[in-house]
Amino acid sequence: MNMGEKGLYIRDFPIIFKKVIYSSLIRSSKKEIVYRDLKRYTYEEFYSRIKKLASSLKKLGIDDNKTVGIFDWNTNQYFESFWAIQMLGAKLHTINLRLSPEQIVWTINYLEDDVFIIRDEFIPVFEKISNYFKKKPLCYIITGDEIKQYQTTLKPLYYYEDLINQGLTDFEFPDLEESLTTLVYFTSGTTGMPKCVYFSQRQEILQAIMNSIGLTAYPSPININSKDVILLLPPLFHGYGWSLPITAVLMGMKIVLPGKYEPKVILDLIKNEKVTFTAGVVRFLKMMLDYPEINKYSDYLKGLKFLQDGEHASRELFLQCRKYGIKIMEAYGMSEGVGYTFATLKDHMVDWPYEKQLDYINKAGLPLPFCEVKVVDNEGKEVPKDGKTPGELLVRSAGLTLGYFNDPKRTMESWTQDGWFKTGDVAIVDEEGYILIIDRLKDVVKSGGEWIPTVFLEDLLMRHQAVKEVAVIAGKSEKWSERPLGIVVLKSEYEGKVSEEDLKNHLAKFVEEGKIPKWWIPDKFIFIKEMPLTSVGKIDKKVLREKYKDIILP
Amino acid sequence: MNMGEKGLYIRDFPIIFKKVIYSSLIRSSKKEIVYRDLKRYTYEEFYSRIKKLASSLKKLGIDDNKTVGIFDWNTNQYFESFWAIQMLGAKLHTINLRLSPEQIVWTINYLEDDVFIIRDEFIPVFEKISNYFKKKPLCYIITGDEIKQYQTTLKPLYYYEDLINQGLTDFEFPDLEESLTTLVYFTSGTTGMPKCVYFSQRQEILQAIMNSIGLTAYPSPININSKDVILLLPPLFHGYGWSLPITAVLMGMKIVLPGKYEPKVILDLIKNEKVTFTAGVVRFLKMMLDYPEINKYSDYLKGLKFLQDGEHASRELFLQCRKYGIKIMEAYGMSEGVGYTFATLKDHMVDWPYEKQLDYINKAGLPLPFCEVKVVDNEGKEVPKDGKTPGELLVRSAGLTLGYFNDPKRTMESWTQDGWFKTGDVAIVDEEGYILIIDRLKDVVKSGGEWIPTVFLEDLLMRHQAVKEVAVIAGKSEKWSERPLGIVVLKSEYEGKVSEEDLKNHLAKFVEEGKIPKWWIPDKFIFIKEMPLTSVGKIDKKVLREKYKDIILP
Repeated sequence: MNMGEKGLYIRDFPIIFKKVIYSSLIRSSKKEIVYRDLKRYTYEEFYSRIKKLASSLKKLGIDDNKTVGIFDWNTNQYFESFWAIQMLGAKLHTINLRLSPEQIVWTINYLEDDVFIIRDEFIPVFEKISNYFKKKPLCYIITGDEIKQYQTTLKPLYYYEDLINQGLTDFEFPDLEESLTTLVYFTSGTTGMPKCVYFSQRQEILQAIMNSIGLTAYPSPININSKDVILLLPPLFHGYGWSLPITAVLMGMKIVLPGKYEPKVILDLIKNEKVTFTAGVVRFLKMMLDYPEINKYSDYLKGLKFLQDGEHASRELFLQCRKYGIKIMEAYGMSEGVGYTFATLKDHMVDWPYEKQLDYINKAGLPLPFCEVKVVDNEGKEVPKDGKTPGELLVRSAGLTLGYFNDPKRTMESWTQDGWFKTGDVAIVDEEGYILIIDRLKDVVKSGGEWIPTVFLEDLLMRHQAVKEVAVIAGKSEKWSERPLGIVVLKSEYEGKVSEEDLKNHLAKFVEEGKIPKWWIPDKFIFIKEMPLTSVGKIDKKVLREKYKDIILP
Repeated sequence: MNMGEKGLYIRDFPIIFKKVIYSSLIRSSKKEIVYRDLKRYTYEEFYSRIKKLASSLKKLGIDDNKTVGIFDWNTNQYFESFWAIQMLGAKLHTINLRLSPEQIVWTINYLEDDVFIIRDEFIPVFEKISNYFKKKPLCYIITGDEIKQYQTTLKPLYYYEDLINQGLTDFEFPDLEESLTTLVYFTSGTTGMPKCVYFSQRQEILQAIMNSIGLTAYPSPININSKDVILLLPPLFHGYGWSLPITAVLMGMKIVLPGKYEPKVILDLIKNEKVTFTAGVVRFLKMMLDYPEINKYSDYLKGLKFLQDGEHASRELFLQCRKYGIKIMEAYGMSEGVGYTFATLKDHMVDWPYEKQLDYINKAGLPLPFCEVKVVDNEGKEVPKDGKTPGELLVRSAGLTLGYFNDPKRTMESWTQDGWFKTGDVAIVDEEGYILIIDRLKDVVKSGGEWIPTVFLEDLLMRHQAVKEVAVIAGKSEKWSERPLGIVVLKSEYEGKVSEEDLKNHLAKFVEEGKIPKWWIPDKFIFIKEMPLTSVGKIDKKVLREKYKDIILP
């Protein structure tokens, strides 16, 4: 029995963007939102701008029946569009800049985008691909740093800043249903065409709350509060890219947007805007740490908090960060569900020495509130929490897509009957409940019926001083079906000075320590100059497997 | 258009208790829940106990169609019942211990409670009142500190600990709809019969999240995290009483339950269990501070964080707390909606001197996320944020009851057409957006068509060194219709030494400072020995108004 009374107009308070902005406008009205050294305004002005933008978009016919594709770097204009379009009830399709033109066309035709917001530098790209659009767009809206007119075949054309200038400040955003889908994008799967995931403001905000609790309520090296200054490094078309801005506005933090990724710009923003917190994949960190003049910035990196996700980072990276005073914690999520686990510390670990804490903060970690995880074997039975039995990680979470849009077949393949999402990641769970991702299910080496997790081996190999990058892949074996094959990029100063035998001996030490069984050691290592990368900057094992498919191991 | 796909089994992740406990069982499995010096167990054991309790209750016929009345102090058994009964989907009626027997019978008959959980010491009360129950209960369940058999007319009778002992640890809680009503109780209104408010687990958890963000994400004197130890002081049958336990479990804190309120027990718990955080009305604080042997505990009160609500507290109380090292912050909520605003600091106030911060943390404060507030005049127009124009405070909030259960008339009176709840509180808003409650609408003195807010005057009067307690009420005036009348209890050492004129002169200083207009000064003061109190320990102005109704002011 529900006690809701018929005929009364009071209903549940909807969990929508409008409500998130409301309280921050009171707390943080004068806080700044900064885009490079180009634009700087307060939360108040931000709200005024998105109201003006929304009123103009509405005049152009954009309502809750429309899909808007956006193609831009993390600029203030993207940030504003992110809020305004969803708050109109329209669907925002955040197009992945890293996809191939063919894939981009495919995703646009999949969703039948009605309108496009495109950064000026990408006009030539869109002039080409627009020939392949199945549906004629209502219009194109151009963003950019300069106010300029363009000659282009894209028509009808509007300029973003004109729309803002012509907008109405007294526009009122509608009261939306919290479960309305307003965010859509595609996973950058390395196999097959991208898969379409979709989110309501309820899901987005619950994810933002989960992030917020994970960053404030539990001890960790990267605790934050509203006084922190956040740099929105992950692209808005990725998971953390869309959820951290909501967390930032919910908490009323000063927000810094980097635009196109350039190490010097990012480091200068950290320095000049006093950035204290950011997040992203390992590549972002490396991009900064590898910057030739990094030492000029060392005073400003000291104390910087970094939420690292996208892959299990090496222990070496954590130690390298520590040298710079950068505080780092691992997290785990994916396009389908953004943030599942944070490697926060349990209370009794707070006073441990750093080396011991590192065994935990350098894992995927513990489930956030409103996320459930389990690691299961082939029969769907939970594996023991012993820190060594691998299984597939399954997830249920408040921030998880409710399937692949318009793709019941792949949805059925990836969700269990009781709503668990099969991540395709292989994990182990330790006695404290911390999850460690040790491989992708499709990358795991199946040797004589047993699993050899490649990411786990890569992590140990990265601890060798000469190794810059490493990928372990499945090589063909007549006896064992598959055997591990190591592909290695050495640091330039070690090129030619390290042998296969050296690396095998390095791993043999971990065999002695009981960390891995002897038969996990790769049978062969191949030294190469550079790793092939996927669109999101991860090592592309598919390419490696294809390249070395003719090698036969014992 | 919603993208949800027909035929698929994936649905929104429900915001229910089961999910809150899930993640804390992983993070905080070994954290303790402590009841006085009588009971102490881990979160794991807590979960096992509520599963056993729920399985036994289900056997007794308690399901989502039943209402369970509970009558107890804040004991571990009450705490367990709070979770187990709601997680079964049944409605928990938290009976207010402070109501009169007549009112208690009235509330029980209003909801037609099916089952009662009663503390042993209250068996005699229930033996008497059960004669007036309209519906025959399914059974009575007895809680208590000792395992004992009772001779009683209450039948059929079960003992709580027997039910736990006979329960099943492998019981599985059902997957409930998040909007199902599972918590019901009555406001202790000072006019008319109590009003029935009702909450779903969605509302309860969103309120707990709002509390959590308010206590962790924004700077305040009482920031907490999972390492804090919480003393659950407010009774579970009050607003903060039910929402803070959920916040505590969500954050995985050590939890301490005081049982029956006894200053020595509370102070000993603070000392022995290393309590760092608690909350409640002013009376709780005074009960501690007035304890004769308070100085024995001064080392343990140092640093204690106190979230103060229930009324606007005097500045003197804040200063008195500061002497003991107790950190205090005001909050504002009510039975209908628990926590609307917290007086957290804005970031730019963090480095201010305490005296200046006090002008803000000693107000109702700023709306929490997912709460909207506005202060309106008689025509429903928002008053200026000038720190002096009074209006009625309206609220919309994720944690607010959706009306008064089964009482459309009073619901219509208290909610506007667009879903704003009329709090009946008179407030002013300052330039920073901080709300200060200055009166109850019904207590405000209407003098010559203008409002004189009595709580505001009381606050200024409390700053006089001789004043222990004060109430300003409306006295009859032929000329002005109403004029303020001050009722004062002096500190014992000042009795007979302070005159009406002294108090008027005291207020005249604030007139000179421009804080209040001259015509707000009460025309008369009456000195009494003791204030009449309501069931929740507030000064009962209704009684005072009745008592002094024959006094005629100029």
